[in-house]
Amino acid sequence: MKITILTIFPEMFEGFLNTSIIKKARLKHLIDIEVVDFRAYSKDHSHRVDDYPYGGGAGMVLMCQPVLDALKEHSCQDSYILLTSPTGAVFNQQMAHQLMEKKDIVIICGHYEGYDARIYDYADQQVSIGDYILTGGELPAMVITDTLTRLVDGVIAAESLVDESFENGLLEYNQYTRPEEYDGKRVPEILLSGHHENIRKYRLYESLKLTYLNRPDLLENRQLTKEEERMLDDIKLEIAEQNAQQ
Amino acid sequence: MKITILTIFPEMFEGFLNTSIIKKARLKHLIDIEVVDFRAYSKDHSHRVDDYPYGGGAGMVLMCQPVLDALKEHSCQDSYILLTSPTGAVFNQQMAHQLMEKKDIVIICGHYEGYDARIYDYADQQVSIGDYILTGGELPAMVITDTLTRLVDGVIAAESLVDESFENGLLEYNQYTRPEEYDGKRVPEILLSGHHENIRKYRLYESLKLTYLNRPDLLENRQLTKEEERMLDDIKLEIAEQNAQQ
Repeated sequence: MKITILTIFPEMFEGFLNTSIIKKARLKHLIDIEVVDFRAYSKDHSHRVDDYPYGGGAGMVLMCQPVLDALKEHSCQDSYILLTSPTGAVFNQQMAHQLMEKKDIVIICGHYEGYDARIYDYADQQVSIGDYILTGGELPAMVITDTLTRLVDGVIAAESLVDESFENGLLEYNQYTRPEEYDGKRVPEILLSGHHENIRKYRLYESLKLTYLNRPDLLENRQLTKEEERMLDDIKLEIAEQNAQQ
Repeated sequence: MKITILTIFPEMFEGFLNTSIIKKARLKHLIDIEVVDFRAYSKDHSHRVDDYPYGGGAGMVLMCQPVLDALKEHSCQDSYILLTSPTGAVFNQQMAHQLMEKKDIVIICGHYEGYDARIYDYADQQVSIGDYILTGGELPAMVITDTLTRLVDGVIAAESLVDESFENGLLEYNQYTRPEEYDGKRVPEILLSGHHENIRKYRLYESLKLTYLNRPDLLENRQLTKEEERMLDDIKLEIAEQNAQQ
């Protein structure tokens, strides 16, 4: 997979590209990430990329020319073009899996007040990473790139991916590592038991409980197994009893 | 406001801290951002920060000791401690406004499979930036820091903030800048008219329409003015007519 990022702040990506999983995936040629400074494409004599909005208002608006000239040079027939935008569909793990079918993705990073709306016509999809206001599309581009890179075959061990939050539609169960006791707090005994089936059940129960308490919306869209249904009944009972005692 | 970020990848933050709005806000001392490498606090002879999970499973889990020793040194009584976690509440602009009441925020960046769940006990709040799986808490920490910094008095001109997406509960209307025609596409005539009241109405209409089409969930939680209610009726009619013609 190739991901090309069009931005006026290429230096923001240096740390991201040279750290941890992304660095390793690039060195192993599992993913090709190119960052393009679209300011270099500006035909303005002082390399401006933005201008005042028609109709008045505060802030500056990205112009068509530098963005679209850079896009023309760094995309091809098969490119799938994403525009980071607060008005776009909200990115999630399911969208990430859909994007994995593309071989060549271009991400245009917006900035300032926004971009000339005519740029929308050149994008296949507008995408937001959440309901908050950021300075620009650089952090969203990194979020999308990080999420996709982790899904490329060979980047993360397959068994690590299965239990992660959202992948099976539930939040992940709590994890513990050494020491057994820290600051008076002990690891749950069952995790020290070595009894694999009990540990599996315990983790599934905890996973369902966390999801039920923190993100009940995730359960609404998920088909439960018989075992999960029984556990969820127990969880509701447990919580009702706790509430009754308080 | 002071934001302290605890991470094992401090180098990932360099570009972010030295670009655009964040750089300017730091230079003007409007915000103080400190990035702390908690690996330096590891008492392990090879500065390890993670270990195998109790109960088995893939991946590594962050240990309590380095994280909590770094936290102890870089927090005080008044610190509000955030833990980035996919199981946390989903960050949004409203949460950002609530966090603005804090003077001192510490963000702990998780990594690998997660952290020892006992670390949760030392945090005031767990926060996620969306339903996708990232390599670590570094990008979420940047997203939160960027969103908060933009809300600090003096960082962004006040008039620029009002119309942004989510701030007034609606997606922002489309913007246009020069030239009037680009690649055969013209700026809407009304924006060239100079008629302020008509432009205001046009933008409100477009804003409502974009929100209705792309993010109807935002309208459910928002009290509409009489003018907005009338416009929304017109929008529904317009869309019904378009659908009937197709």
